[in-house]
Amino acid sequence: MKFFQSVEGVQKISFGEMIPTDTILEEMFKETESFYIPGIIDKRTSHHIWKLNLNEGDVVYGLGQSIRGMNKRGFVYESFCTDDPNHTPDKKSLYGAHNFFVVLSDNPWGIYIDFAGKVTFDVGFEHQDILLIDVEGVDFDAYIFNGTYKEIIGRFRSLIGQSYVPPKWGFGYQQSRWSYVDKNEVLSIAEKFDEHDLPCDAIYLDIDYMERFKDFTVSDDRFSDFKTFVSDLKLKDIKLIPIIDAGVKIESGYDVYEEGVKNSYFCKDENGKPFVAAVWPGKVHFPDFLNSRVREWFGQKYHRLMDMGIEGFWNDMNEPAIFYSEQGLKDAISFVSDQEGKNLDIYTFFDLKNKIMNISNSESDYKSMYHNYDGMKVNHYDVHNLYGYFMTRAAAEGFKSYAPEKRHLMITRASHIGMAKHSGIWTGDNHSWWEHLKLNIQMMPSLGMAGFLYSGADTGGFGGEASGELLTRWLQFSIFTPLLRNHSAMGTRKQEPWMFETETLDRIRDVIKMRYALVPYLYSEFMKANFNHELLFAPLSYEYDDSRSKRVEDQLLLGDSLMLAPVYEQNSRGRSVYLPEKMVLWKATAYEHLNENQFELLERGYHFVDVALNEIPIYLKPGKLVVMTKPENRISTLDESNLVVLGFVPDHASYILYNDDGLTKGYESGDSLQTIFKVDRINNKYHISVDTNDLALKTITFYLIDDSGNWHVIKQNTFINDRRYV
Amino acid sequence: MKFFQSVEGVQKISFGEMIPTDTILEEMFKETESFYIPGIIDKRTSHHIWKLNLNEGDVVYGLGQSIRGMNKRGFVYESFCTDDPNHTPDKKSLYGAHNFFVVLSDNPWGIYIDFAGKVTFDVGFEHQDILLIDVEGVDFDAYIFNGTYKEIIGRFRSLIGQSYVPPKWGFGYQQSRWSYVDKNEVLSIAEKFDEHDLPCDAIYLDIDYMERFKDFTVSDDRFSDFKTFVSDLKLKDIKLIPIIDAGVKIESGYDVYEEGVKNSYFCKDENGKPFVAAVWPGKVHFPDFLNSRVREWFGQKYHRLMDMGIEGFWNDMNEPAIFYSEQGLKDAISFVSDQEGKNLDIYTFFDLKNKIMNISNSESDYKSMYHNYDGMKVNHYDVHNLYGYFMTRAAAEGFKSYAPEKRHLMITRASHIGMAKHSGIWTGDNHSWWEHLKLNIQMMPSLGMAGFLYSGADTGGFGGEASGELLTRWLQFSIFTPLLRNHSAMGTRKQEPWMFETETLDRIRDVIKMRYALVPYLYSEFMKANFNHELLFAPLSYEYDDSRSKRVEDQLLLGDSLMLAPVYEQNSRGRSVYLPEKMVLWKATAYEHLNENQFELLERGYHFVDVALNEIPIYLKPGKLVVMTKPENRISTLDESNLVVLGFVPDHASYILYNDDGLTKGYESGDSLQTIFKVDRINNKYHISVDTNDLALKTITFYLIDDSGNWHVIKQNTFINDRRYV
Repeated sequence: MKFFQSVEGVQKISFGEMIPTDTILEEMFKETESFYIPGIIDKRTSHHIWKLNLNEGDVVYGLGQSIRGMNKRGFVYESFCTDDPNHTPDKKSLYGAHNFFVVLSDNPWGIYIDFAGKVTFDVGFEHQDILLIDVEGVDFDAYIFNGTYKEIIGRFRSLIGQSYVPPKWGFGYQQSRWSYVDKNEVLSIAEKFDEHDLPCDAIYLDIDYMERFKDFTVSDDRFSDFKTFVSDLKLKDIKLIPIIDAGVKIESGYDVYEEGVKNSYFCKDENGKPFVAAVWPGKVHFPDFLNSRVREWFGQKYHRLMDMGIEGFWNDMNEPAIFYSEQGLKDAISFVSDQEGKNLDIYTFFDLKNKIMNISNSESDYKSMYHNYDGMKVNHYDVHNLYGYFMTRAAAEGFKSYAPEKRHLMITRASHIGMAKHSGIWTGDNHSWWEHLKLNIQMMPSLGMAGFLYSGADTGGFGGEASGELLTRWLQFSIFTPLLRNHSAMGTRKQEPWMFETETLDRIRDVIKMRYALVPYLYSEFMKANFNHELLFAPLSYEYDDSRSKRVEDQLLLGDSLMLAPVYEQNSRGRSVYLPEKMVLWKATAYEHLNENQFELLERGYHFVDVALNEIPIYLKPGKLVVMTKPENRISTLDESNLVVLGFVPDHASYILYNDDGLTKGYESGDSLQTIFKVDRINNKYHISVDTNDLALKTITFYLIDDSGNWHVIKQNTFINDRRYV
Repeated sequence: MKFFQSVEGVQKISFGEMIPTDTILEEMFKETESFYIPGIIDKRTSHHIWKLNLNEGDVVYGLGQSIRGMNKRGFVYESFCTDDPNHTPDKKSLYGAHNFFVVLSDNPWGIYIDFAGKVTFDVGFEHQDILLIDVEGVDFDAYIFNGTYKEIIGRFRSLIGQSYVPPKWGFGYQQSRWSYVDKNEVLSIAEKFDEHDLPCDAIYLDIDYMERFKDFTVSDDRFSDFKTFVSDLKLKDIKLIPIIDAGVKIESGYDVYEEGVKNSYFCKDENGKPFVAAVWPGKVHFPDFLNSRVREWFGQKYHRLMDMGIEGFWNDMNEPAIFYSEQGLKDAISFVSDQEGKNLDIYTFFDLKNKIMNISNSESDYKSMYHNYDGMKVNHYDVHNLYGYFMTRAAAEGFKSYAPEKRHLMITRASHIGMAKHSGIWTGDNHSWWEHLKLNIQMMPSLGMAGFLYSGADTGGFGGEASGELLTRWLQFSIFTPLLRNHSAMGTRKQEPWMFETETLDRIRDVIKMRYALVPYLYSEFMKANFNHELLFAPLSYEYDDSRSKRVEDQLLLGDSLMLAPVYEQNSRGRSVYLPEKMVLWKATAYEHLNENQFELLERGYHFVDVALNEIPIYLKPGKLVVMTKPENRISTLDESNLVVLGFVPDHASYILYNDDGLTKGYESGDSLQTIFKVDRINNKYHISVDTNDLALKTITFYLIDDSGNWHVIKQNTFINDRRYV
């Protein structure tokens, strides 16, 4: 073991020589004397088990994309990227591997396990007061954090660096379906949005846009003259976002396949032959993304679609999902065939069923695949959690080589913390279950802890049937998530807003428009959370240290100014809410109906709040401001010169509004627009100042609520202009 | 169509000539003129669709055993008995078929569809304000109810008659596992209960007690000398409850099989041969329970085990579950074999998976099976929902012929409303999910509406892994359900109380003992709910007509005196509660720790209530009483001569305590013990009278809480004795 120290509150221990994950900005650390390690580490031959104590009152936050509540106590979680569309409460692994957690205790602490293979966390399941970390390997790094909850997150996030930033249009509403099968359908979807006066910035192309599911091809039949089609949609200011699969179809004449074979770019089997698995297209090889030459090659393939005008992608099936391997299918078929004519009882019949059910994503397949990690031969199982991450890194590197300064939209399914700098994620194949709306709410903070700021769930649910009420309530939450996408699966009820009755469609329109109205605030908070290594979505205990706050599992802080307490239950027309301090509840409906009767001052403590189907409940923290603008149907047409600022200001408030061109990478780190709002209430009168370097700014209308709940409208059109802040 | 009228508030329409379900006590009805039918009925050739309007504020209660909340709006439910162990929120059918619902409206109404086949209810899913009933047949009866919610339930329940009543020991704690594999294991389980000072009245024998899963056999190997074994356990006052499967193993020399074939007692295929399906034992025939001769024959088979001392059974797999039919398996294997060597893509691969997955409980198998319904040949599909019901009726008739006056324990998995008079039900193969604890809570009232008073869920969850916290919280609710059973599946974490850490075991002991302490109240309320056609568990709106009450989805009234608001979330240490009137919260811990500090007076309205892990939150309604006794480890040893009466009595209260010998059927309807408690508070002093026909009664200790929250202890040992009330 080696011991390292860097900044205050972070200690590092190296157990053996880990396979690099490219997660931590290493330069910060220097070797040091040994130091005290909490808990007991049981070092075994092939794995290490770390046993740590929890106190009865401790709350455990983190583990990124995983099932169950914000407080992870009471269950076992595995970091092992898994394609499993049934996110029931017993699933130990989802698509991401995010080995970072924080224990909110009298003296909070956190741990990050930097490792490419499987790690299991028993968070007080077997024993309520014991946290067990089982690392399936002996070569890994561990980082131990101390500080407040907020400090620990800041320290961890600075270690992993800045997160991926999408183009600003990525904050628009995005519509998806598996699948829109041809140009006409996509076009008609785009037209319907305009027809129904619904905002939309992007439409996804799921697997059927390709020719026989071959990456980087476009079906000639159904999407002929793709370049013109992409550009026609751009004229409507709608982007197309095609899907890319991890597996490359085995088909002679298909250049990606042939180049891969020729250059030995694919993962290998035990005998050094390209490993054969099957996914959407049937049999495929998996590009060996752990190899930098392969990444460069595959990354450049994205240029083909970019040459046709594409500016965003979603990488899918990159856990990697394996429907079956050649050998696995053969064995299963042979097992099943052998049952012919037999009298199968409960045990032998379930053996048969399981033989077929367990054919996919089998451990033995993963263990039969090998990588050439820049010269080092490694078994796939040992680096499983890097695969989707390195695929997406390949894409990100490809985008960079295509247009170094330009931001591209990128979301991916499998992930590892190291990937957060390259891409956003969506939370995979959820269902149209109210429980999954709740899961979406509860997962946002832990995704942010792992660095995934640009993320969101398939709104309305991917699998299963959504009711109009579910879609409405879900949107009332997901309009706050940076990625706002409605996606649904083949064979399920169609989920585009106009597929529901008129009342629902009308409500949905108002909700999505409210998203566009909020973009100035949402974008500003997103960017600041990134620069400052903070959470965009946070549990209440991120800001409030009372003992009630840490027990709240269904409310969120959103940036600096807002608290959310969404309605996530069928037929519910209200809910209980805990306010850690006095706040103003805004029951938002249509943006144009904004009026003082929508606001109510609520005291600290518990409240039951009625929430009608058309109301978005938003809680304004005291002394904070929210910046909005009039909604439009595209992000690009939002008028950010005329703003609306809303706030509950008992005495004073200030807010820094961040903005930039939303397209260029450089702006992320400084060349930006900043506007500082300051509001003071002196002798029952508001005094306002606005300092800005945004020369385009014209008018700002302030809606301010004072400590008695009264509403004041103040219009401002003079500013201190052009003082640079950065 | 024919129209019928009976008592006030009930109207009946006969569409065609229905296949009898033996659900309704027909004699009440007489034919009448036609009358107004609400909604629109679309009569098609092979089914009828009934379209009814809902108002925005309407709440829909009912549909018995089904998924989702108490208010069924927002989803589609199918009445089609189904063996599906994954009770996810998208499952339209569970094990029972319960076609009765009530719409809580300004003028409440309800409908019961008396039909043996499939019925689908779209309760505001496709259109939020439309309730669609799709009856898959044209021959059925429909009953339309009017009145208050409570009246409608009373009217329906009097139509279906008195519900099944278990022996009183059926209110004890019951322990189960798939499976305790031999005598020694069962014995050791029984001993562990005593060793750990844990109450227990019964242990279940899951499928492995039989010889090769043959009904009415006992494994010689593992359960030799079964009669002595049963009687040894009875000496410990523990009952054994063996499982019985619907399917009869095909095995020559097995008498049940041979008799069935010889007498043509099995369901037939298209060619009149006994239908071959497979379940636990492999290939089986299904007894044709729709035939009264078959019921008589099969019912008598239970006598074998009763001769060995068995007094209770659970009938399982009687939807009927079909793992596979001979033909279905053959087709599937042949389909799979044909895929050998093929390159399967996403669609063809899922075809293969689905071929195997859909082998079980397939519609085509059900449609290939035929009954001889006392002379009438009917296709199984058309009477599917009667199968489990008539199996259980066979058992009940068998018990009756064995010991006409004796009560037997009987629970079954598949059910139909008509069965409620014969048996209790457990809610099937749930999971160790917090969501299923909530489902358990939410399902109790709708089960009661369908007449199933003796019911409960597998506490701790059947599938999956339970944490100590989950089991504790679950028990804190299920100690109130008449059936209190802990059951878990093979391969999952063992769920007997001592399988958890000591703190958990200690908490569980206190919780189960509290159940035994409450048995006087629980039994009394159970019996009265039955006599009076009332709900034992009810939504708040059963008693309270404020607009808040009907929105509450996670609180229950339990009998006349109590309200429950259980904690059902992981890591939760409290919850929000709505009180429709002033109540006293009792945070019960160990019975012997009962003291005045556990009680808190709460005003009408919303409250956040802290609930520590060892606390059972119980709400005492004003002017009502709860009767308890000191807990023991068996029901039979409870001392019901010395009682404790607890109540929140601002001015006056009265309570009728029902009791009987708990074993004899006759007592159900009258020859019982009744004690009337009357408490009046006059000039700040309590005046108590107790009228009883229970000559054994010795002392009663009253713990009374007044309107200021003060606690008064009054001991009473003189009563007005031997006045008969009935």
